[in-house]
Amino acid sequence: METWMLQALLRRLEGVAVRIILWNGQEFAPSPHSPVATVTICDRGTLFKLLVNPEIHFGDAYRSGRVRVDGNLAVLLEAVFQSRAGGPPRQLSDARPGGSGSGRSNRDALSLWTKLRARALGYLRANTLRRSRKNIHHHYDIGNDFYKLWLDSQLVYTCAYFPSLDDGLEEAQRAKMDYVCRKLGLRPGETVVEAGCGWGALALHMAKHYGARVKAFNVAGEQIAYARHRAAEEGLTQKVEFIEDDYRNISGRFDVFVSVGMLEHVGLSRYDDLGKAIHRSLGASGRGLLHFIGRDQERPLNGWIRKRIFPGTYPPTLRQAMRVLEPRAFSVLDVENLRLHYARTLAFWLERFEKSADLVSSMFDAEFVRAWRLYLAGSLAAFRTGWLQLFQVTFARTASNEIPWTRAYLYREEKPDPWEQPAFTLPQAPAGRGSGGGLLTQER
Amino acid sequence: METWMLQALLRRLEGVAVRIILWNGQEFAPSPHSPVATVTICDRGTLFKLLVNPEIHFGDAYRSGRVRVDGNLAVLLEAVFQSRAGGPPRQLSDARPGGSGSGRSNRDALSLWTKLRARALGYLRANTLRRSRKNIHHHYDIGNDFYKLWLDSQLVYTCAYFPSLDDGLEEAQRAKMDYVCRKLGLRPGETVVEAGCGWGALALHMAKHYGARVKAFNVAGEQIAYARHRAAEEGLTQKVEFIEDDYRNISGRFDVFVSVGMLEHVGLSRYDDLGKAIHRSLGASGRGLLHFIGRDQERPLNGWIRKRIFPGTYPPTLRQAMRVLEPRAFSVLDVENLRLHYARTLAFWLERFEKSADLVSSMFDAEFVRAWRLYLAGSLAAFRTGWLQLFQVTFARTASNEIPWTRAYLYREEKPDPWEQPAFTLPQAPAGRGSGGGLLTQER
Repeated sequence: METWMLQALLRRLEGVAVRIILWNGQEFAPSPHSPVATVTICDRGTLFKLLVNPEIHFGDAYRSGRVRVDGNLAVLLEAVFQSRAGGPPRQLSDARPGGSGSGRSNRDALSLWTKLRARALGYLRANTLRRSRKNIHHHYDIGNDFYKLWLDSQLVYTCAYFPSLDDGLEEAQRAKMDYVCRKLGLRPGETVVEAGCGWGALALHMAKHYGARVKAFNVAGEQIAYARHRAAEEGLTQKVEFIEDDYRNISGRFDVFVSVGMLEHVGLSRYDDLGKAIHRSLGASGRGLLHFIGRDQERPLNGWIRKRIFPGTYPPTLRQAMRVLEPRAFSVLDVENLRLHYARTLAFWLERFEKSADLVSSMFDAEFVRAWRLYLAGSLAAFRTGWLQLFQVTFARTASNEIPWTRAYLYREEKPDPWEQPAFTLPQAPAGRGSGGGLLTQER
Repeated sequence: METWMLQALLRRLEGVAVRIILWNGQEFAPSPHSPVATVTICDRGTLFKLLVNPEIHFGDAYRSGRVRVDGNLAVLLEAVFQSRAGGPPRQLSDARPGGSGSGRSNRDALSLWTKLRARALGYLRANTLRRSRKNIHHHYDIGNDFYKLWLDSQLVYTCAYFPSLDDGLEEAQRAKMDYVCRKLGLRPGETVVEAGCGWGALALHMAKHYGARVKAFNVAGEQIAYARHRAAEEGLTQKVEFIEDDYRNISGRFDVFVSVGMLEHVGLSRYDDLGKAIHRSLGASGRGLLHFIGRDQERPLNGWIRKRIFPGTYPPTLRQAMRVLEPRAFSVLDVENLRLHYARTLAFWLERFEKSADLVSSMFDAEFVRAWRLYLAGSLAAFRTGWLQLFQVTFARTASNEIPWTRAYLYREEKPDPWEQPAFTLPQAPAGRGSGGGLLTQER
């Protein structure tokens, strides 16, 4: 039995530069390359579980200490994700050359099981308003003190943007917020509705630096309290209103809709609700931006992360995300994929988290530290290997021509006249013989 | 009967600033605003047909002279497309405020009929290899001399890119070709496969200005002959090979896949074929670009244009276009919507077309001139009003990290080091206490 399990494990890890140590002291190296990490499996039962459902059980075993990793966890996971067993998404129709028959059929059976199970659980965990709040509370209300230890100083818990590799985390989060505002062409005096405002950094940034008036929604009570406190401290209570409520209850008309890091929490069956909320919120020349973790191929979020860290979360493909906008006649103006920026952001978070690991352990316990280390390292590896993507989708009403002429203004040093409006007007009077000419009158 | 028809017509044109003149001299102005054009309907039968199926019959009537337009045709069509009857795509679930019940139900019935009819015809006109060639020949083999009259000097029959409104058409087509090459990060010595190369301008541009080696496919024989002639004249036959064949027969491995203005001819049921062709063509770090006319909501191409100008053509939504890439594990890096640039491009084409209208009439006939004027003016109006979009989708293999760090390089004046590769490597040795830190080593 044990021999079979070992063989199965080594086969799965073929090509991964890792050293395995078992409970009885035996050592194995599935790859001739020098190992990036050493993985110790502390008992037979753990090895069995790892084979049956690695996606769930590696996480639980690492968390409980029944699997130990010596070496860089993110490096190890990147190697695993790149290998054939955990490799990048397969071509759905073409067989990959050199694929092992039995390996692939084991993986197929497992993935079918995982898929069915996920679907069943999905029904049970549907994102009703009540459950949405519960899911969000589970993660975001752990306590501001915890997040303050490793996020940036403004508690921006989403992908940062690094125009230069010399940028630190605080700089990059500010650059991300500026980038969002520039993509939206935000002008002084405009009104913004934000769905899922976190600790309020973006809403406050829009008010402070772009002169916008913002209504920001969030169901996480601790975050809202913190955001309100910041608004008061910074004298922005007249410009930014934080509302503890679900995006489905958004009301009012705004120039701009923005949602950064929230679509992942919406749930596929609710995309139409979100689309309705956006439609209700915007006037005829309204525009918006959705920033979200996504995938290239449909697949639920990692099972262990859904179980332990982020219940009720789903990273959509770009195709699925279009379901939010398409029925409402919104036009996609721009999509940008920033997954490598998310990997870098997570590298900063992980570094800060490690520095505070002792403190976190005393606030919670050692298991909590390991769980969150795995979550951060695993996410980093997922962005590095293309298992996860980060999309910023800028959109406007289909019928609106108040849109940027080109994207060049986004990358100029000086703060640009947002969405400079070169356009041409069609002359009212007939012009030219067959009435097709004379359309190149310019107006700025 | 006549009164009923007139009332129906005026109701449809409510709000459109047009003057209507009938065969009996009667004049009508459905809107109090001063008219952008005068439309003369020359007989009762024509009016009837316009009411039953304006999408097809306006085109045929204009072409045959049974409807005359005095005034700017593009301006008129833009007004019609913006009006309620021909207005921007409706919200699928929410009623638009102030909508007239009978108007909307008439339109629904008509649009359902149009949809069913299109679907039935679609089956009959499925894009088999043979039919694809026939469809393409129908349009592109009309004769190079015709297109030379109104396209730019390089015969680039796709949307141009105007970084500045001072750019003329030739400049803008060169700018578009440069823009495509920059988005692809094309480097000297790299190999490119182009699906649907038209008269060869882009392939030759890539070879001449970017040092690429190109294999360019096209089923339109006259275009291929022209392209080969250009390659010979410009001394580029060693670098660019023009192949008269369908994209489904592409073979070989390349660094880059590009397709500008071809996806519209592929047909929804063949997207998987195109995806396979792309997948076969690219290696592990391959990347590509699709440039195509699309829509924000699913709808066939205008019936008259499909009947008279471009059979077998379909402008997909972004969502539908994802069907090409998603099954093959390609990652969307960047999407840009350039519809207003297409309107401007068409304005140039229309202007040149009008200047050559007499010559075109002598090459073909007056009906041909009117048909093509309507096609160009109607397309312009469609891009201006959001009925049509223009998407440039840049993609790479999901597992490839050889992708741009940011988009800033696209907008620098000097020719950039394409796809400068700031990235970070994860260190091999364990670093930091819990093995989560030390990931921010930079390597350029």
